[in-house]
Amino acid sequence: MKQYITNDPWCVVEDGFHPEFNEITESLMSLGNGQMGGRGSFEEKFTGKTLLGNYVAGVYYPDKTRVGWWKNGYPEYFAKVLNATNWIGIDVEINDEVLDLNTCPVRDFRRVLNMQAGYLERSFVVTLKNGHEFRVRSTRFCSIVDDEAGAIRYSITPITADAKIVFTPYLDGAIRNKDANYDETFWDEVRKETAYGEAYIELCTRKTGFHVTTGMCVEVMQNGEKVDYQSQPIKHEKYVANRITLDCRQGQETVLIKYAVNLSSLNYGVDELLREAKAYIQRISAKGFETMLAEQQQAWADKWQLNDIRIDGDVAAQQGIRFNIFQLNQTYTGKDERLNIGPKGFTGEKYGGSTYWDTEAYCLPFYLATADQQVARNLLVYRHKHLQKAIENAQKLGFTDGAALYPMVTMNGEECHNEWEITFEEIHRNGAIAYAIYDYVRYTADEMYLAQYGLEVLIGISRFWMQRVNWSKAKQQYVMLGVTGPNEYENNVNNNWYTNYIAAWTLRYTAEAVATVKRLDAGAYEALATRIHFDETAELAKAADIVEKMHYPYDPERQVFLQQSDFLDKDLMPVSDIPAEQRPLNQHWSWDRILRSCFIKQADVLQGLYFFEDEFDTDTLRRNFDFYEPMTVHESSLSPCVHSIQASKLGMKAKAYEMYLRTARLDLDDYNNDTEDGCHITSMAGTWLAVVKGFGGLRVEKDQIVLAPYCPDGWEALAFKIRFRGTLLQITVTQQDATVANFSTQPITLSLHGEAVTIGADSAETIAHKAIAA
Amino acid sequence: MKQYITNDPWCVVEDGFHPEFNEITESLMSLGNGQMGGRGSFEEKFTGKTLLGNYVAGVYYPDKTRVGWWKNGYPEYFAKVLNATNWIGIDVEINDEVLDLNTCPVRDFRRVLNMQAGYLERSFVVTLKNGHEFRVRSTRFCSIVDDEAGAIRYSITPITADAKIVFTPYLDGAIRNKDANYDETFWDEVRKETAYGEAYIELCTRKTGFHVTTGMCVEVMQNGEKVDYQSQPIKHEKYVANRITLDCRQGQETVLIKYAVNLSSLNYGVDELLREAKAYIQRISAKGFETMLAEQQQAWADKWQLNDIRIDGDVAAQQGIRFNIFQLNQTYTGKDERLNIGPKGFTGEKYGGSTYWDTEAYCLPFYLATADQQVARNLLVYRHKHLQKAIENAQKLGFTDGAALYPMVTMNGEECHNEWEITFEEIHRNGAIAYAIYDYVRYTADEMYLAQYGLEVLIGISRFWMQRVNWSKAKQQYVMLGVTGPNEYENNVNNNWYTNYIAAWTLRYTAEAVATVKRLDAGAYEALATRIHFDETAELAKAADIVEKMHYPYDPERQVFLQQSDFLDKDLMPVSDIPAEQRPLNQHWSWDRILRSCFIKQADVLQGLYFFEDEFDTDTLRRNFDFYEPMTVHESSLSPCVHSIQASKLGMKAKAYEMYLRTARLDLDDYNNDTEDGCHITSMAGTWLAVVKGFGGLRVEKDQIVLAPYCPDGWEALAFKIRFRGTLLQITVTQQDATVANFSTQPITLSLHGEAVTIGADSAETIAHKAIAA
Repeated sequence: MKQYITNDPWCVVEDGFHPEFNEITESLMSLGNGQMGGRGSFEEKFTGKTLLGNYVAGVYYPDKTRVGWWKNGYPEYFAKVLNATNWIGIDVEINDEVLDLNTCPVRDFRRVLNMQAGYLERSFVVTLKNGHEFRVRSTRFCSIVDDEAGAIRYSITPITADAKIVFTPYLDGAIRNKDANYDETFWDEVRKETAYGEAYIELCTRKTGFHVTTGMCVEVMQNGEKVDYQSQPIKHEKYVANRITLDCRQGQETVLIKYAVNLSSLNYGVDELLREAKAYIQRISAKGFETMLAEQQQAWADKWQLNDIRIDGDVAAQQGIRFNIFQLNQTYTGKDERLNIGPKGFTGEKYGGSTYWDTEAYCLPFYLATADQQVARNLLVYRHKHLQKAIENAQKLGFTDGAALYPMVTMNGEECHNEWEITFEEIHRNGAIAYAIYDYVRYTADEMYLAQYGLEVLIGISRFWMQRVNWSKAKQQYVMLGVTGPNEYENNVNNNWYTNYIAAWTLRYTAEAVATVKRLDAGAYEALATRIHFDETAELAKAADIVEKMHYPYDPERQVFLQQSDFLDKDLMPVSDIPAEQRPLNQHWSWDRILRSCFIKQADVLQGLYFFEDEFDTDTLRRNFDFYEPMTVHESSLSPCVHSIQASKLGMKAKAYEMYLRTARLDLDDYNNDTEDGCHITSMAGTWLAVVKGFGGLRVEKDQIVLAPYCPDGWEALAFKIRFRGTLLQITVTQQDATVANFSTQPITLSLHGEAVTIGADSAETIAHKAIAA
Repeated sequence: MKQYITNDPWCVVEDGFHPEFNEITESLMSLGNGQMGGRGSFEEKFTGKTLLGNYVAGVYYPDKTRVGWWKNGYPEYFAKVLNATNWIGIDVEINDEVLDLNTCPVRDFRRVLNMQAGYLERSFVVTLKNGHEFRVRSTRFCSIVDDEAGAIRYSITPITADAKIVFTPYLDGAIRNKDANYDETFWDEVRKETAYGEAYIELCTRKTGFHVTTGMCVEVMQNGEKVDYQSQPIKHEKYVANRITLDCRQGQETVLIKYAVNLSSLNYGVDELLREAKAYIQRISAKGFETMLAEQQQAWADKWQLNDIRIDGDVAAQQGIRFNIFQLNQTYTGKDERLNIGPKGFTGEKYGGSTYWDTEAYCLPFYLATADQQVARNLLVYRHKHLQKAIENAQKLGFTDGAALYPMVTMNGEECHNEWEITFEEIHRNGAIAYAIYDYVRYTADEMYLAQYGLEVLIGISRFWMQRVNWSKAKQQYVMLGVTGPNEYENNVNNNWYTNYIAAWTLRYTAEAVATVKRLDAGAYEALATRIHFDETAELAKAADIVEKMHYPYDPERQVFLQQSDFLDKDLMPVSDIPAEQRPLNQHWSWDRILRSCFIKQADVLQGLYFFEDEFDTDTLRRNFDFYEPMTVHESSLSPCVHSIQASKLGMKAKAYEMYLRTARLDLDDYNNDTEDGCHITSMAGTWLAVVKGFGGLRVEKDQIVLAPYCPDGWEALAFKIRFRGTLLQITVTQQDATVANFSTQPITLSLHGEAVTIGADSAETIAHKAIAA
């Protein structure tokens, strides 16, 4: 755990130069706009620790998998998030000396990610070999208004003497992925060109054939005025640049503005890319840096208006939650239903693939409550678009007749993970995709989604579950053998309770959805049934039989659900019995020992009790929480949020807060020593859940918002906003009471601490808290 | 299945040119002498299908492992059997045309592996572009007398006209492994030199630093007389050769003799290698090819004298069993306790590593019964030498206090397999190593082995088992969670019956061994106990508690042992229910589907009932056989032999013969379409077991040989030899009776069909068979 980042309610601040943590800071200060993004690296050359990373949404490479012994059904590739052309680079030579913070003394260094306005700023003073000092400032952003563009304002002021400064703004595509299985190059050069102050380079990915054209143009200003300059073009393989030599006066700021665009063949015809890139560059440079930045600030203000969470009385917590909301918004904007939420977003390469079950299980509620309904809907449509691939994926494993198994990790719908115990067995992901449809419809009341897309997905998933179970003659029940549940610290277990439960639940919900769609649009239903050969009577009867006779492992003595059939054979002990120096287990214990232990990486039974809380009473939750929580090591960043929500529900405020803290500043404090690889984007949604569903007690039941809010000890107030079916609400919670403000033109009735409360249009109601058990 | 190999009792014959099967033939016709060996490739250039492979015993490379997600405890490398300098190569140009059977018409092609005499012969007539014909003959062997040497007699006779022939005998170390994870080069050149008719090259393996010096010298004979020749040296990187140009007369045979040696730093100081290689070359060339070959024939005759199996009335079966015995003898001679029996021997590269549990479970009984006692003993000492590494291996996984886990695959005692479900979980191998000690002592009565080496190994293994089980409060028994049994078509199961049984058996046997060693040599015992901190009272008490309270999954209804705790939840069905086109499963079903199915790759419960047959009655065996046999797909070459032995014991002669056939000609008929990768060396011992322990009914009980022989239907007679404590016996079995001949100078009493029979020195007894159930 590191705490070199200064607490600040709206900014992530590195005050003073911390080159030893630079890769962490680069992750934290990443910029993105949903279409492109990259790490918070320096523009000028830096020979110290750095992971230069720029990424373009949806552009990936199918790297060869690395497996010990290939077996039938293994995926053929492991998709890599592709490090793309570096567009931020500006090499600087001052009086023939290369500016490199790894070699020059630096003072007054400050790097600030301004989350309120969506830009990254940096300033420092450097002393060069001849003893002269220079002040350098840069401001950089990825525009969320012009979302294929970024811009940089980079300036140098000679402090002690005049200087000759050579700026070389460049585009460098000679980039290798840090995360590559066989250390191969993933890009080929297609073309490049330069013009006065401009440069363009087009690369093409190997195998996948994505073209990405990166363009730049450069302005120079001195004394606040644009100046002409000599531009010397430089071209190498996969590299274009303009070398600009300027005479700079002592005390005078010389500003270089670099506009850049990244256009990909996902959005343009290959033949149009260069022309469009030029037009885009023309458009933004005409707009100008200051206008672009002002638009950026306004757009971010609009976003914050809808989804800010305010925490009074705890600046670190305030910074943490805003950081998480900011990064989620940088990663996914919901405009393009072909995109999804990569586990590292635009902050790193690790984990490959863009889409895990994290999207459905953790991220969807965030976008449902904070963004336009279309955003969440696009996340669902993404999976509908991949249905055929999911059916093919299941076929590869031997399933038939339209059974669909969604991949564990994907870019284009194909499975692209490596390991059988995950790919073949961690099939609960399929249930989360069904659950997300339910969650969306429950929140939005958009039942037509079922008719249009949802039911087809549900039937595909249900068909998978019906084939995946088998009848145990010994148990006289349906069992599901050989699965890995959400707790990846057990592999290939039988009857994972969570998986069995979500499978049976999917079958029930599919039957409901059939009824709904028949009611809404009988014609659409018939067309679908015909097209996918859905034999309603037979398939629903089979499903009902499985629902009725599914096996759920249970301990009658403790009255808890068992994570899997043989869980009680394990040597059960609390995490507190493990010596501190052996934690985290995954860094100290052999995989074998972890698998055999009772210790749980991530909420598993408790994840099910969270999803399906309406189906279990509080005593059941409490018994299971008391049984599993002490054995849970939370070595997945997705775990503590669920426990936090459950603890809030059980009135265990201290435990809820402890669990909240485990994720809230996970990256800011580099809690797991791995932020240098990038930020844990999807788990950031978990923090939001812990606040809004945990402390806020937000639920949707029977078309109504339900709230059971409380303010954690030590906080003065907590305020969050949610959108719900056209209404924008702000819930402000203090230690004493909760105030719900309705910013819409309609009154809304909701349940607050169990009581129905109606809040008029544009008004607010305050209600004192009920006593909540400590 | 292919049947292009001609049936012959003593030879493997390719009659006619089969270039399409050349890689298979190369595997089948491999030559070896325990120290070096290689595939039966052509000496001259061949641009058709070929896997040129020459291997030097004990020389390996630690290739980087290929895993998806590295986890704690994973081995750091995967050892590769190293393709070494090609010493067989002789390039030939006739009248400036390169001799290459891939490009010239060939007739009268015949390639013969003479197993009786231990050499490979080849002859053919080739027509070159100018229409002239040439007869080519070669004879090659790896000497088992001079076991670091090989020799080749290569001759060409112009049939239709005189010719200028250029022979270029060479040593080529610019070899890449076919089996390499990252396509890297594993060898560096150290030095090379040439002299008149001689050449030497020394290479060094990367990382492991093994030096191997290969040398050659060349003689030329015409008209049966040595002739002088011009020798033009050629050197490239990792390549040395002599180019020899000869005028050859029509009808005259020109003979080139190439002597070669491979000396490794395992056996010589690095500084001595070149000198020793020259001396070795000098020695064998002075001896001369014909003498070497005569010695080779005599040495093989001596081997066959001890371990031949004769099958009358079935040439294919006769060929099959001799092929297996021949290859086992080529692979391992037992002279060097640092070596072991690689799964492919010197016939290919696949599977890496040299030592699997195959050695103890399958090969040991072969060497016990057919070779000097020292050979089997060396196989045990090999593991004793690796005990410290086995303790370190266990430590990496979290075990303490001298617990030893032997590796699944090894070269030097370190684990070098890739996959957690094998490496961490297929721990029954540890039991097989304990069992081998028992097997050896039972056969040889060499109880002093326990005092000298065996007990220390047994204590290390027992300590592992005692830590590996845990107490299940639910079952009130000891359980063993997360293992993979011999049936690798189930991974990470709980309470694999075989593993639990062999673990508890090890604890029992260790206690016995403690008593034995205390009786034999109390001083040695005390010294050992002190050295390894063996707390006899506490450790044996703990062991006894585990033995008493071990859990064994059992089905009371069927009265069968269960392969693992949840086996009865599977959808049980016979293999015969699987459509033929879906077999073998591992080529047609996804790994996921295989794991969830009831189908068994390899004898598992039945392997235990084979090892510990004294502890179970025949009815128990029959019930378990009837339950498991129909679900066993035998997709491991190590499986059918165990079922064959059990079927023989149960009097199921047809089933026993069916199972015997599955392995007897596995490679000769390329049954699994994989002989091109090399032969299944270790499973060859299984065929021997099926004959000697199955058809022959050989056991050792209470210091006596026990036989219950029968002759499979369709065979006229079966005869095999066994050595037992200084006695050499030949058992000849016909449909009517069995004759046991005693070639020793002492009478021997043994049990034949349940009756005590004494056979005098140098005499034989014949006894009619008891009725055996059909």
